[in-house]
Amino acid sequence: MFSNSFIPDMRFGAGSFSETAAAAAVLGDIDRALVVMDSFLAASGLANRLIDDLRAHGITAALFADFAGEPKLPHLQAATRAAKGAQQVIGVGGGSAMDIAKITACCAASGQDPMFYALAANPLPKNPLRKILVPTTAGTGAEMSATSIFAGDEGKKLWIWGPETKADLVILDPALTVSLPPHLTAWCGMDAFIHAFEAATNRNTHAGVQLYAYEAMRLVAGALETAVKAPGNLDARGKVLLGSCYAGIAVDNCGTAIAHNISHALAGLAPIRHGLATALGFEATLPWLVAAPTAELDAAAKAIGLASAQELPGFTSDLMDRCDIRRALPVAFDAVSPDELANEMGAMENRPMRRATARDVVDGDLVRFAEVIMSLPKTA
Amino acid sequence: MFSNSFIPDMRFGAGSFSETAAAAAVLGDIDRALVVMDSFLAASGLANRLIDDLRAHGITAALFADFAGEPKLPHLQAATRAAKGAQQVIGVGGGSAMDIAKITACCAASGQDPMFYALAANPLPKNPLRKILVPTTAGTGAEMSATSIFAGDEGKKLWIWGPETKADLVILDPALTVSLPPHLTAWCGMDAFIHAFEAATNRNTHAGVQLYAYEAMRLVAGALETAVKAPGNLDARGKVLLGSCYAGIAVDNCGTAIAHNISHALAGLAPIRHGLATALGFEATLPWLVAAPTAELDAAAKAIGLASAQELPGFTSDLMDRCDIRRALPVAFDAVSPDELANEMGAMENRPMRRATARDVVDGDLVRFAEVIMSLPKTA
Repeated sequence: MFSNSFIPDMRFGAGSFSETAAAAAVLGDIDRALVVMDSFLAASGLANRLIDDLRAHGITAALFADFAGEPKLPHLQAATRAAKGAQQVIGVGGGSAMDIAKITACCAASGQDPMFYALAANPLPKNPLRKILVPTTAGTGAEMSATSIFAGDEGKKLWIWGPETKADLVILDPALTVSLPPHLTAWCGMDAFIHAFEAATNRNTHAGVQLYAYEAMRLVAGALETAVKAPGNLDARGKVLLGSCYAGIAVDNCGTAIAHNISHALAGLAPIRHGLATALGFEATLPWLVAAPTAELDAAAKAIGLASAQELPGFTSDLMDRCDIRRALPVAFDAVSPDELANEMGAMENRPMRRATARDVVDGDLVRFAEVIMSLPKTA
Repeated sequence: MFSNSFIPDMRFGAGSFSETAAAAAVLGDIDRALVVMDSFLAASGLANRLIDDLRAHGITAALFADFAGEPKLPHLQAATRAAKGAQQVIGVGGGSAMDIAKITACCAASGQDPMFYALAANPLPKNPLRKILVPTTAGTGAEMSATSIFAGDEGKKLWIWGPETKADLVILDPALTVSLPPHLTAWCGMDAFIHAFEAATNRNTHAGVQLYAYEAMRLVAGALETAVKAPGNLDARGKVLLGSCYAGIAVDNCGTAIAHNISHALAGLAPIRHGLATALGFEATLPWLVAAPTAELDAAAKAIGLASAQELPGFTSDLMDRCDIRRALPVAFDAVSPDELANEMGAMENRPMRRATARDVVDGDLVRFAEVIMSLPKTA
């Protein structure tokens, strides 16, 4: 038995961003929109281009670009104020822009504060503003998910979940991803690969999601090295972007596992890029995972052309080598001990990922994984 | 560049039908629903069971089961009257039940007659009733599509198209398909296989849909013989049902080709089951199609484990043999000439399927295909 959450309308192709305003005009009766865009993208002229296009379609648009890093409560409150009177929210950027757009579309419709919905405190409004999401990094798959993350008043990580936050239309334009630097391309791409792998092999997996997960693994594994080494290659960029989107579908339905447990635990201790943290956690745990191979682990290996699960660690390390991923932690982790990391991995909020892992994760495993991770070099 | 239409929430699994009422209760504020159900299913007690379940969830449900064969305008008008005051429509049955539910959900919301929307005469209402679709035949994939077919006042085939007609939730319960007789199982299953094949290989195909089409071909080709010969095998029934659903996604996005051109042309001349007509049209044209192999034809062949497109005709004939499909037309076709069929294949309304075919279809091809089809034995 499985249950799959709806998959939004998608457009894919180099140049498809130029259709955003026209798509907004046909998505529903509209004369006003809010554009949520990463500030460096807005500064590049992309915001003016979109706002001009919207105006040509009879839509007056406000811009919210005043955020950086992970979304914080004041960002969401400011975006909600800016959305006043709008019928649609158009999010353009990385995972933060996606999440702000998703939450704002709900809060602007109901007039409620984001905290009203945090941690499922209250049901989301049934008729949120319509949303168009345009991801410009290929990794999180946030454009396909029903989950949004933000930091509350004391910096505590909170989430809002519900199909009401999902996009009405997702536009995937590989041309928007060519400016992503090689190291971020590699980290984000590995995050997408690991989303797909964990969703396809964890204890919540099912046939209805493996379809997307396998295709995501094939697309990312086949194209990531080229996307890193030839940033302007639109074919490779498109494959990684589409793979990231399919991986987002997989995670939206089945969640993740131990690599993401480690990644979230690391992020709780010092600033680290999510994709890098996930890749390090994945490589550190994969040999242990495949030492107890399941049918799903073997099937995932076969989906990317390997003979069995035993070949996965070698394949993954080679992929990370080819993508020039340096195995190192930010210097801020100098102050972190393996015990602290193991503790964080065992914390309540990271338990679902631990429990979903295909192999039982006992406390001794957490300690061993933490030691492997913390033995990595710390670099600036 | 591609554009993919949204994919509804899905639940899959033997017994999942029993969750229908609970799903209706959480889909939105609701106290009243219309159940559209094939009359033989309603007579089996399935309607009472569902209506009792709905009542237990505080939902009063009316039943519309007064239809047979393809939906006609009076069916749609009667269903729309029966939906008065309802917030949801629940369709249970074959393609006709799906199409009646889809159209009724729009007409009941706006108060308009179905003819108001036929052939895209007017835009559909933006807030139709919510819809739960439960297919009980595995073939049409109508539960996933934005297209509905009905017969107008003079018997003319009309269509209504739009995302507003699509399901909010699709429930796939293999247990509901075990009573489908073996010959219908075989015909419907071939229809699903051919939907997937044509969507994956025609001139409108793209990578965003091949994902679903290939999986549909694998599922149906792998399980159809067992579903035909061991009707109670829920694993095989589930694979064919899921394959049919994925094929519906593929067709919803990319349409069909020459086999469906022939199938629609045959149906315009005398009564014939859609799946049988499609299978006969497919087998009659496949050797011609693969004589000019394209990259997409080879890729589709490889997706089901064949070496190249050249192996497709033999594979297909063997699959039809294993599923005991008799190559014969209904006796009513005794009165039809090959020229009449060729004419119908060339008619305006069947042109999109002709034009979408991977290989150019010239008039002489139509004549040759019509001769092959009409040379088949006619049986009672």
